Amino acid sequence: MKTHAFICLASLFFAVSSLYGQKFDSDKYKIIQTDREDGRFVSSRGFVHSLLKNTTPEYAFNEHFTKDEMLVWQTKVQDGMKELMKHPTLQNLPAPQMVEETQRDGYRVQKWEAYPLPECVVPYLVLIPDAIVADEKVPAVLCLPGKGKSKESAAGEPELHAAYGPSVTEDRFVMAIPFVRKGMIAVVVDNPGTAETSDLERFARTGYQYDQIARVLLELDWSYLGFSSYCSMHVLNWMKQHDHIRQDRLIACGFSLGTEPMMVLGLMDPSIYAFIYNDFLCNTLERWVVMTEPDQRGVRKTPNSIMHLIPGFLKKFDFPDIVAAFAPRPLIFTEGGLDRDFNKVKKAYSIMGASENMEFHHYAKFENADRMNQEKLPEGLNSKTYFELTNVDPPAHDMKMHHILPWLDKILK
Amino acid sequence: MKTHAFICLASLFFAVSSLYGQKFDSDKYKIIQTDREDGRFVSSRGFVHSLLKNTTPEYAFNEHFTKDEMLVWQTKVQDGMKELMKHPTLQNLPAPQMVEETQRDGYRVQKWEAYPLPECVVPYLVLIPDAIVADEKVPAVLCLPGKGKSKESAAGEPELHAAYGPSVTEDRFVMAIPFVRKGMIAVVVDNPGTAETSDLERFARTGYQYDQIARVLLELDWSYLGFSSYCSMHVLNWMKQHDHIRQDRLIACGFSLGTEPMMVLGLMDPSIYAFIYNDFLCNTLERWVVMTEPDQRGVRKTPNSIMHLIPGFLKKFDFPDIVAAFAPRPLIFTEGGLDRDFNKVKKAYSIMGASENMEFHHYAKFENADRMNQEKLPEGLNSKTYFELTNVDPPAHDMKMHHILPWLDKILK
Repeated sequence: MKTHAFICLASLFFAVSSLYGQKFDSDKYKIIQTDREDGRFVSSRGFVHSLLKNTTPEYAFNEHFTKDEMLVWQTKVQDGMKELMKHPTLQNLPAPQMVEETQRDGYRVQKWEAYPLPECVVPYLVLIPDAIVADEKVPAVLCLPGKGKSKESAAGEPELHAAYGPSVTEDRFVMAIPFVRKGMIAVVVDNPGTAETSDLERFARTGYQYDQIARVLLELDWSYLGFSSYCSMHVLNWMKQHDHIRQDRLIACGFSLGTEPMMVLGLMDPSIYAFIYNDFLCNTLERWVVMTEPDQRGVRKTPNSIMHLIPGFLKKFDFPDIVAAFAPRPLIFTEGGLDRDFNKVKKAYSIMGASENMEFHHYAKFENADRMNQEKLPEGLNSKTYFELTNVDPPAHDMKMHHILPWLDKILK
Repeated sequence: MKTHAFICLASLFFAVSSLYGQKFDSDKYKIIQTDREDGRFVSSRGFVHSLLKNTTPEYAFNEHFTKDEMLVWQTKVQDGMKELMKHPTLQNLPAPQMVEETQRDGYRVQKWEAYPLPECVVPYLVLIPDAIVADEKVPAVLCLPGKGKSKESAAGEPELHAAYGPSVTEDRFVMAIPFVRKGMIAVVVDNPGTAETSDLERFARTGYQYDQIARVLLELDWSYLGFSSYCSMHVLNWMKQHDHIRQDRLIACGFSLGTEPMMVLGLMDPSIYAFIYNDFLCNTLERWVVMTEPDQRGVRKTPNSIMHLIPGFLKKFDFPDIVAAFAPRPLIFTEGGLDRDFNKVKKAYSIMGASENMEFHHYAKFENADRMNQEKLPEGLNSKTYFELTNVDPPAHDMKMHHILPWLDKILK
């Protein structure tokens, strides 16, 4: 009964402080901890946090691999990704159809439709330089745009609807045109639910409702990334049959969200020649572990929405492991991260005898001395402090063609 | 180019109507459809809706089952549920400990702690009638409360903190006391993240952040229901060892959210004697298919939050199938639903020769002639119209002891 009396008093205290508008002190609770002597958590959030902290990815890269061990490991990582992505295997699908062609200055923009699943249309754009002659085959880039960016904006084309973006495409988000100017073919697909693949967003202007799509897919034992990477893979396979595309010079280029399907395709399809990773290199499990600071309302928010949820992903591998498994294929990172993670990828390329095939750049702001160089991030971060400690400059998050184009010259020479 | 001109004009029109505050007409878009001749969807939301509509649960109950087929099917449903729930198998766990005991009028309330996983504490309440004598064993009820309701409120005890609920427990949500008054032992567990198992909710008063817990579990290939049912199963197994509990008279009682772990335990543990289903009987796949009306902002909301997400659940079976698999064990429904679904459950009990073991009641409002009796719900519903068509009276959603207690007399006589 004493306990109850204390609890009643305590309740009264909190009720009164709340009435008088005392602000919640988020700093005080930013670390998830227990005050029990046995170290156990009564709080379910505390317990699931301990589950996260105790997770070791099954297929983590090991820097002591020999080359032979590395080859065996790469197969495991590939199998693990196939298992997570659950791509259906469908036979006798209809061939993609071209539905529109527009002449631009020095290249044509073709609009195609693919039919990778029953009841589904996946529209995509194909940019072809005028300079290509009859039997010529050229390298090609599959461009995978960022969240909220249409394939039109990534191709430098006008939006199909005012609700899909600003009337003039911002150059810094254009992906395809610089590749076409170099004589390559560029193909661009939408992330599912974006622009013309969205639902009511053009009428109601709500912002893209990705989570609604993701949720339905998760209910059906699939995922947003499983679906989007399956559609992109279908388009990639079409590219391999194209009269003017060199099958042995396919490049996957991911911006922001687009790095996710890029990583999936890279593991699942060893025929992809090279990779452009235009985002910072994130250790997602660590991000989940350290981003625990509650907001002003007392809510510890998740690092991202369920469009990024692939059940079990964190138990298998992390982004640095996936890109390490790309070795020896050419790979460029354009927006930095932690040296710790790049050292891991460098080591993988070194084991495979291909150190020269991996290149990384930091954000301009962090290119020099004032870069963070943590081995292990502390818990209690919010998204701002997380980005600070991982050398991310959010306002400068865009396509870094000044790094990419010289690298292309190098790998395609 | 004509297309682009049209699109620009259309964009202008929408931009202008939006500027002049024209309201989004949600009724016009309540049905998800495509205007393409080939019936395919460019909209990703449209496509995933077609995936939902084409889903047939693998282990759906078949009313033409013989009794032998029914027995084989029950094993499959049980295996399917085990697969979805992913309960860990841990050895040598510490035994639960009693940490507090309080005398009430005619019964004692014991507070216990269980330790079903490393770093985890699951507190629970045990209500024991004073009238139980030395070697007596009595039936016992495991009470599984609704969303946002603490184990304390379900046990008629004061809340441990003012932020957890009103200072006086509302009788209509009390689960345990009427059972204790009948001479039974009642055990109550919290849904994870509720009341004392919550995180910062008592300081910040944000409402329970169930989705944050669910999201971490899903990342780790588990689920909120997998975790909560595992914890409840651990407590249920403890009940079986209790000196005063009859192992052959264990009853699982779920209110609202609590019906979910109740269904899991019911399938996974054939030793449970009887079930109290205190919610309407929902066909969740149909609910997903028909609740497509966008809100005023143009967002088609999902029927519920990710605390209810079990990846792949909809592909295996639905709530009516699960409860049909309980036959011939005693089962009562207290808050109705559609006769269509009850006929399915009735048929299962009839096949098992136990028609008298299944009883159902509708909400008072729908007990008589004015009940909806749809065979198939139409698409384009919102949550209000969905409840109207399924005979649900949300303000009257509470414990229906006036149905439960006479039924208990019948099944325990």
